[in-house]
Amino acid sequence: MGQTDAAFDGYRAALADAGLLIPSGVPGVYGWSGAFEDVVERVDRYVTRMGADARAEVIRFPPVLRRADYERTGHIDALPHLVGSVHSFVGTDREHRQLLQLREAGADWTTALRPTDLVLTPAACYPLYPSAAGMLPESGRTVDLGSFVFRHEPSPDPTRLTMFRMREYVRLGTPAQALRHRDDWIARAQQMLAALGLDARPVLANDPFFGRGGRALATLQREDSLKYELVVPIVSDDAPTAVASSNYHLDHFSRPFGITTPDGRLAHTACVGFGLERVTLALFRAHGVHLGCWPAAVRRTLWP
Amino acid sequence: MGQTDAAFDGYRAALADAGLLIPSGVPGVYGWSGAFEDVVERVDRYVTRMGADARAEVIRFPPVLRRADYERTGHIDALPHLVGSVHSFVGTDREHRQLLQLREAGADWTTALRPTDLVLTPAACYPLYPSAAGMLPESGRTVDLGSFVFRHEPSPDPTRLTMFRMREYVRLGTPAQALRHRDDWIARAQQMLAALGLDARPVLANDPFFGRGGRALATLQREDSLKYELVVPIVSDDAPTAVASSNYHLDHFSRPFGITTPDGRLAHTACVGFGLERVTLALFRAHGVHLGCWPAAVRRTLWP
Repeated sequence: MGQTDAAFDGYRAALADAGLLIPSGVPGVYGWSGAFEDVVERVDRYVTRMGADARAEVIRFPPVLRRADYERTGHIDALPHLVGSVHSFVGTDREHRQLLQLREAGADWTTALRPTDLVLTPAACYPLYPSAAGMLPESGRTVDLGSFVFRHEPSPDPTRLTMFRMREYVRLGTPAQALRHRDDWIARAQQMLAALGLDARPVLANDPFFGRGGRALATLQREDSLKYELVVPIVSDDAPTAVASSNYHLDHFSRPFGITTPDGRLAHTACVGFGLERVTLALFRAHGVHLGCWPAAVRRTLWP
Repeated sequence: MGQTDAAFDGYRAALADAGLLIPSGVPGVYGWSGAFEDVVERVDRYVTRMGADARAEVIRFPPVLRRADYERTGHIDALPHLVGSVHSFVGTDREHRQLLQLREAGADWTTALRPTDLVLTPAACYPLYPSAAGMLPESGRTVDLGSFVFRHEPSPDPTRLTMFRMREYVRLGTPAQALRHRDDWIARAQQMLAALGLDARPVLANDPFFGRGGRALATLQREDSLKYELVVPIVSDDAPTAVASSNYHLDHFSRPFGITTPDGRLAHTACVGFGLERVTLALFRAHGVHLGCWPAAVRRTLWP
């Protein structure tokens, strides 16, 4: 998006100098200070308050998904380069000695591991769909989710995190119920971000599908206007960063898990997702690195 | 510990019937309801209040650790069966087609993946030590950490979670500073749990080190009295469950990362860790599954 590595390096260094970011040595993985975390927590609670009228069911899953369920979502077909597959050691004493010999020799010791039943979850809503198999009530369901999520896309951009906190409201119901959720939340998220002093614009978007086949998927997703992102300047004004997205999935998640409406048809689903670290980074960019100097209205909104 | 699978199944079913636990199909991985999460969050804040006098630095890392740092901790030597190594796909279109063919044939498609630079973190404090390399101030450091952590030990016991939230206070300093932190927190954690109506006992413990060599490590750890667990009845009175532990690491973490005291010696470290889901499960066990029926004193302590 026109950003140079130097711009990213400069911005990362500024965050580290302000004591907000602690480098880990791996691009996309950072520790965060107490001040940063205070804002993340306040943004999280703000999302809760702003969604309260939906009376959503609250469910929290750990950031892992059953591998068999992961395979049914089509993620490995469309977004294989983002997957985080979890592997462990299940061998004997003798096999352990072989593992340690590999490591000693500087060879790849992970060849001694086996895949577990788990992958890291690509979005907070993924573990919900298998648990929602069956017939929905007449009014559908609205679920409040939140989780660390994993996307393997190492980058010098400090807003592109390998694991980040995603907060979601998911709607499962008829096509009309799902579509209305998606559209309501585009407007609502824009207002919410405006109340934080963030000038967010909704833009038609597509997921970063893999390879040549992925280009066709991306075109379809745009032609059907399935995904909108809310973008805000963080690293630069020219290339604003997505801090939230509102998505209409059609029957992508209901079909593999058999989620139906009371008339026996496949349900449709939609979700709005907020990237909590990105909203936080946008706030520090817009209002400066000293919380005490933020505009009074923004402080009142986050610390009510 | 004398528990039968039937006892675990019964307890898990009771939690699911009360609407607190949502099965995922994988042992050790569950979704949790809003009521459960409310308690987790309150326990988390209670730990914050009870540790406030230490004026700890707050740092939060995502639940991953740089693989190169992981290797230096000795975890793969002593606890290889618990590791969670993260693997992803970094190949071409053609290699992706081969991956999908493997999956189509019911073969192990993870052979097409490569290890990333990351492993899941085994404890909340692991990512701290590499970031603390160098000389500590005279007063040492006390750090407040919290993270989902990963331990691959699938079990029908609903208190044994593959990923769970761990809250820690870590001390880095002289041997006396570290040892005092460990001992103070054994007493303090016991009092904190008592104020929640939980009858916690400190017991000398050891980590579940792997294999034949591991038995010697466990014996050494007990002989040196390095690890104490606070145990509370959850699944049964006969076999209480550890909900917290207070540990003295000697120079185990300071040696590989070069963390020293101002006199140039290797620092010693200690940590107290609370398992937030286990404290929550202990509270539901002690006070029942209806929050409204909990003793007034416990409610006042958690909802001040």
